Amino acid sequence: MDFASDNTAGASQAILAAIAAANEGSAQAYGADPLTARAALLLKEVFEREIACFLVNTGTAANALALAAIAPPFGAIFCHAQAHIMADECGAPEMFTGGAKLVGVAGRAGKIAPADLKTVLTDFPRGVEKQVQPAGLSLSQVTECGTIYTCQEIAELTALAHGAGLMVHMDGARFANALVSLHCTPAEMSWKAGIDVLSFGATKNGALACEAVLFFDPTKATSLPFQRKRSGHTLSKGRFLGAQMAAYLENGHWLDLAARANGHARRLAAGLAKIPGIRMPWPCEANEIFAILPGKIDAALKAGGALYYPWRFRDAGPDCAPPAKDDVFVRLVTSFATLPSDVDSFLTLARSAGGERI
Amino acid sequence: MDFASDNTAGASQAILAAIAAANEGSAQAYGADPLTARAALLLKEVFEREIACFLVNTGTAANALALAAIAPPFGAIFCHAQAHIMADECGAPEMFTGGAKLVGVAGRAGKIAPADLKTVLTDFPRGVEKQVQPAGLSLSQVTECGTIYTCQEIAELTALAHGAGLMVHMDGARFANALVSLHCTPAEMSWKAGIDVLSFGATKNGALACEAVLFFDPTKATSLPFQRKRSGHTLSKGRFLGAQMAAYLENGHWLDLAARANGHARRLAAGLAKIPGIRMPWPCEANEIFAILPGKIDAALKAGGALYYPWRFRDAGPDCAPPAKDDVFVRLVTSFATLPSDVDSFLTLARSAGGERI
Amino acid sequence: MDFASDNTAGASQAILAAIAAANEGSAQAYGADPLTARAALLLKEVFEREIACFLVNTGTAANALALAAIAPPFGAIFCHAQAHIMADECGAPEMFTGGAKLVGVAGRAGKIAPADLKTVLTDFPRGVEKQVQPAGLSLSQVTECGTIYTCQEIAELTALAHGAGLMVHMDGARFANALVSLHCTPAEMSWKAGIDVLSFGATKNGALACEAVLFFDPTKATSLPFQRKRSGHTLSKGRFLGAQMAAYLENGHWLDLAARANGHARRLAAGLAKIPGIRMPWPCEANEIFAILPGKIDAALKAGGALYYPWRFRDAGPDCAPPAKDDVFVRLVTSFATLPSDVDSFLTLARSAGGERI
Amino acid sequence: MDFASDNTAGASQAILAAIAAANEGSAQAYGADPLTARAALLLKEVFEREIACFLVNTGTAANALALAAIAPPFGAIFCHAQAHIMADECGAPEMFTGGAKLVGVAGRAGKIAPADLKTVLTDFPRGVEKQVQPAGLSLSQVTECGTIYTCQEIAELTALAHGAGLMVHMDGARFANALVSLHCTPAEMSWKAGIDVLSFGATKNGALACEAVLFFDPTKATSLPFQRKRSGHTLSKGRFLGAQMAAYLENGHWLDLAARANGHARRLAAGLAKIPGIRMPWPCEANEIFAILPGKIDAALKAGGALYYPWRFRDAGPDCAPPAKDDVFVRLVTSFATLPSDVDSFLTLARSAGGERI
Repeated sequence: MDFASDNTAGASQAILAAIAAANEGSAQAYGADPLTARAALLLKEVFEREIACFLVNTGTAANALALAAIAPPFGAIFCHAQAHIMADECGAPEMFTGGAKLVGVAGRAGKIAPADLKTVLTDFPRGVEKQVQPAGLSLSQVTECGTIYTCQEIAELTALAHGAGLMVHMDGARFANALVSLHCTPAEMSWKAGIDVLSFGATKNGALACEAVLFFDPTKATSLPFQRKRSGHTLSKGRFLGAQMAAYLENGHWLDLAARANGHARRLAAGLAKIPGIRMPWPCEANEIFAILPGKIDAALKAGGALYYPWRFRDAGPDCAPPAKDDVFVRLVTSFATLPSDVDSFLTLARSAGGERI
Repeated sequence: MDFASDNTAGASQAILAAIAAANEGSAQAYGADPLTARAALLLKEVFEREIACFLVNTGTAANALALAAIAPPFGAIFCHAQAHIMADECGAPEMFTGGAKLVGVAGRAGKIAPADLKTVLTDFPRGVEKQVQPAGLSLSQVTECGTIYTCQEIAELTALAHGAGLMVHMDGARFANALVSLHCTPAEMSWKAGIDVLSFGATKNGALACEAVLFFDPTKATSLPFQRKRSGHTLSKGRFLGAQMAAYLENGHWLDLAARANGHARRLAAGLAKIPGIRMPWPCEANEIFAILPGKIDAALKAGGALYYPWRFRDAGPDCAPPAKDDVFVRLVTSFATLPSDVDSFLTLARSAGGERI
Repeated sequence: MDFASDNTAGASQAILAAIAAANEGSAQAYGADPLTARAALLLKEVFEREIACFLVNTGTAANALALAAIAPPFGAIFCHAQAHIMADECGAPEMFTGGAKLVGVAGRAGKIAPADLKTVLTDFPRGVEKQVQPAGLSLSQVTECGTIYTCQEIAELTALAHGAGLMVHMDGARFANALVSLHCTPAEMSWKAGIDVLSFGATKNGALACEAVLFFDPTKATSLPFQRKRSGHTLSKGRFLGAQMAAYLENGHWLDLAARANGHARRLAAGLAKIPGIRMPWPCEANEIFAILPGKIDAALKAGGALYYPWRFRDAGPDCAPPAKDDVFVRLVTSFATLPSDVDSFLTLARSAGGERI
Repeated sequence: MDFASDNTAGASQAILAAIAAANEGSAQAYGADPLTARAALLLKEVFEREIACFLVNTGTAANALALAAIAPPFGAIFCHAQAHIMADECGAPEMFTGGAKLVGVAGRAGKIAPADLKTVLTDFPRGVEKQVQPAGLSLSQVTECGTIYTCQEIAELTALAHGAGLMVHMDGARFANALVSLHCTPAEMSWKAGIDVLSFGATKNGALACEAVLFFDPTKATSLPFQRKRSGHTLSKGRFLGAQMAAYLENGHWLDLAARANGHARRLAAGLAKIPGIRMPWPCEANEIFAILPGKIDAALKAGGALYYPWRFRDAGPDCAPPAKDDVFVRLVTSFATLPSDVDSFLTLARSAGGERI
């Protein structure tokens, strides 16, 4: 019963098989191989346009490389105050940009509200050399609260950002999970909504270790090959990245994986919603659930072997009444590899300890 | 007939199988899994002491993280003038150290001579705030010329460096290839010879993408977890790095792979040595051969489908009479995956074009 | 009637005379001159202990160099959300530290409250490699709101910080102005209250361009000579920095200058307090006044030639009822060079436009 | 008898007087004052064109800011192997550029020969992501050997650099000394010869602490205001920089100062040339003399109170037969403030110890 994260899962069988298949014979190093070319072609098809794409191993690398392409060392990058790039990457954006400043914008349910962005952009000093200069906006899709921006919401935010001269990055570590929830196309959720650079995640959704940085305007990507190399992210046996990404995209495999993960989460959330005492500040829109568990339910789940992490409740902000004494605030994550029986067992344990609402 | 590099090969079957085996069930992320622990244990056994070890995907990352641990932003790191960290990592050491300066030391056959190091260390200004301060020495084993330092040579250089207050890094991208040539223990070729930090490569010798940074004094490694994360090199599904490194080390697999690669190179070099007109500036001591090929031999090999790269001859320096007109200076690299029949075919082609010495 | 800033003033006559006097003959470059030695001696006397001191030209340089000595690139530095290092130095701390993150702590009247600092330090993740690691606390004395921490308040904050393993920096751009208000000794307001590193400002209080970075534990300062040089802050004709700092400290000149500046501010604040419609969110504790001016008063002052800057009112936060329509929120700063007649004229203009309270 | 450096002198009387005059009244901070505007105007007149100019305190800052404007973090900057930016700025260029690599080019008499530059530019890999990318060329005028490039030589080098897509920086710490020797205009020695960015030094030639970074194409300078601020080089009381630079340029004062310094050096060199046993590897073309002194002459000069520094002879390379045992290789520098009587005394001492050639 592992709901700790979607990165405690392994790789999907199809992706693993693709890695094995890629092992035949010799191939040019550093990404000049046919599988990497195949991945690039599929990415263009999936996103319905020319793109510049760069495969790397981690989401942190993808985000930091993307941000380094849009912000100078004296730039400001706006993002949600709890964004992964702000809180969970140990300063990678600062390292790769040479010292740019992340400016956190508060917002309910992990989302930046257009009105708040507008205020921040209006208030932020410009052209005054004492202040870092607005350069980028970074949106997380799925957000840190497991919620999703609609394409319309993304478009509103990118319009504001573009109007202020900023480029817009999307941290799409869970891009697929958001996409299958929105029932839109990859293009609609990215460049058609104004995204300039996308960290397109695959690792959390079934790859072994593979992410892509996608530039919808390839002319902005000229420094990427060098930035990737000097940050140690150009794999010598690049074919194995190409193999992962190609297998991920072939025949909609990625969408199947995400649909499975989201389905598990929906079922889990629906089950939890019926248990007295359990509260969820935000809707389950992708493959994450945030829940306040009464202490006795938490204890019963742990005793039963369930794995999950506590979460910082203060991040919930005004979206939820604060936990009572003994309550714990937790995050549950499902993945393509989640066992349906584990969802059942989890709910059974929770019900036994909490009692089910009629 | 691919002699372009040892990174055009895939992974060994044992390592690929270990990755597949690691895919079962869930595992804690970010390296807190049993396979990473197993790899750490094996590294300690292999090196016969406590070490702090950090797995990453690329040699550039391993080197740059190692150097960042031994040099401040205002430090000087001495290395051979043609070292990989100097010439082939697009400034990664500068990025990770925050701007330290690599100081190239010339030397024959890719090796730094103790007398030259002594002169450089004596001449380099110290304590004068106008100059970067000597902080580290980095040795490449195997060198960029395919040659090997003996343990005694390493010990002489590290003694000089330590006497001058420097820490010593070894770029061991081809550590295994050097080791099986020297017939010594990993401990003897590293910490017993005075190495403080080692980039222990596995990728060029059969891993998919796996290198380890090893600190023989773990107290020097306290910043590594954070530096690795902020550079985007902490893999979420860390078990797959652990699986690779463990399989690499189990039952001497790594030594078998390296012995195989070196054997191919020795046979190839021996064959080339008999062909009139082919000259080799340096002995073949591991799995690389540097050769001056008469133009017609080069043409015949290329026509026959042989793959290899030209090399900068000026690096040969005084070790070899310069190439004649039409000659080309090339590098040939073998790996565990080299086919014996490819060595045969290559030699046959070269002989046909060049004629064999009696 | 220039109340725009204390850096629109020139240098004091004594300091200017010292520069002229220093111009005689030749002197060793880069701070190895007798005047710099004299300044160091006076700083030790004034602070009653051994210190390592480094003279530079700007407060931004002093702050950034100080912070680089206490935080690694993956460190977090806590400061007030409106601190100068956060908002007004264009990312200098990020540049000099190699990417450390400034974490803003909200607080009334420009001051960090001990309870808030405690919460922040307790909540901030530690040892988790995903997050930057707490390394430093930076306090501004005088604060950005013109208020002052008492020695007791400083001691409480530094005790919390030290208890959490942090070093504490004080941005003392207006150290003298705070000191003469608190009627304590320099030692009491700094190291005796737990400050580890001090940016000791002189420029705003009568120097031409001179600040000192002071380390109360000189063993922490070993990298400073190199960091200062590589940031371009080691003046070749260092005697002129020594001359300024020595003249600043000789015979309590610095305290006289600050007392004069503070006196002007006090008189100005007292006068404004009597004018109907003018509100001041914070007490005038040094040489700065923040005031909400009714539009007609603002207009009359501007028409009369008064110079001052508008200020971001949102920084006032809950300390003051928001300005009415037409009100403007402004900052007024006095210096040693402020003319008493300018204070009179300013008040007269304001009174005429606003009417005086009885 | 101080021949240690041209920065052991103070400021010229005219510049000191200008600083005193600038002290009247209040002035806008951060360079928005009339004196800075006046300096900018004079610079445009002197260079006969539009320029973007930025005043700073040190040559290291000027050079590092200039280089940061022309090279990305993954860029290569070519310079003479003994250039000040390479050897004497403690890594400032690396810090300001975010890690760009300085590539030293050997050359006689401190000068890069066009043929050598051509070879280096041709050989340097381009577009290969493993290598840093050629971005800039930096020329020192006066060179580290006290020699001077002719305008024609500069033009040849800049043509090669521009042809290779590089921008060209000139480190003009002793621009004036070179200029008065060449009898050309500032424009001819800079932009008309292809220089893109100039560090225009004043400190070594009579300013207290003042240098300018000049961009002959102002569109390349857009990041400079921010880079200057974040490196702590935007002086709050900027009028004092403006005052220095304006006084330096008014009425050809800078040329008079340089002519005086050069004249002293010429006379000193002419005198030394007549003394048996003294050898000079390079002609005295500005205000520096490099000489091999027999030990007894060196001893006599030191005993007589002469101040000067030993120099690294290896820098002389093939330009001079190596010093005999007891010989010392020294650098002598004159300035506007050198006393004619000191030149006389120095020569008298040297003659007494060495004997004069007939």
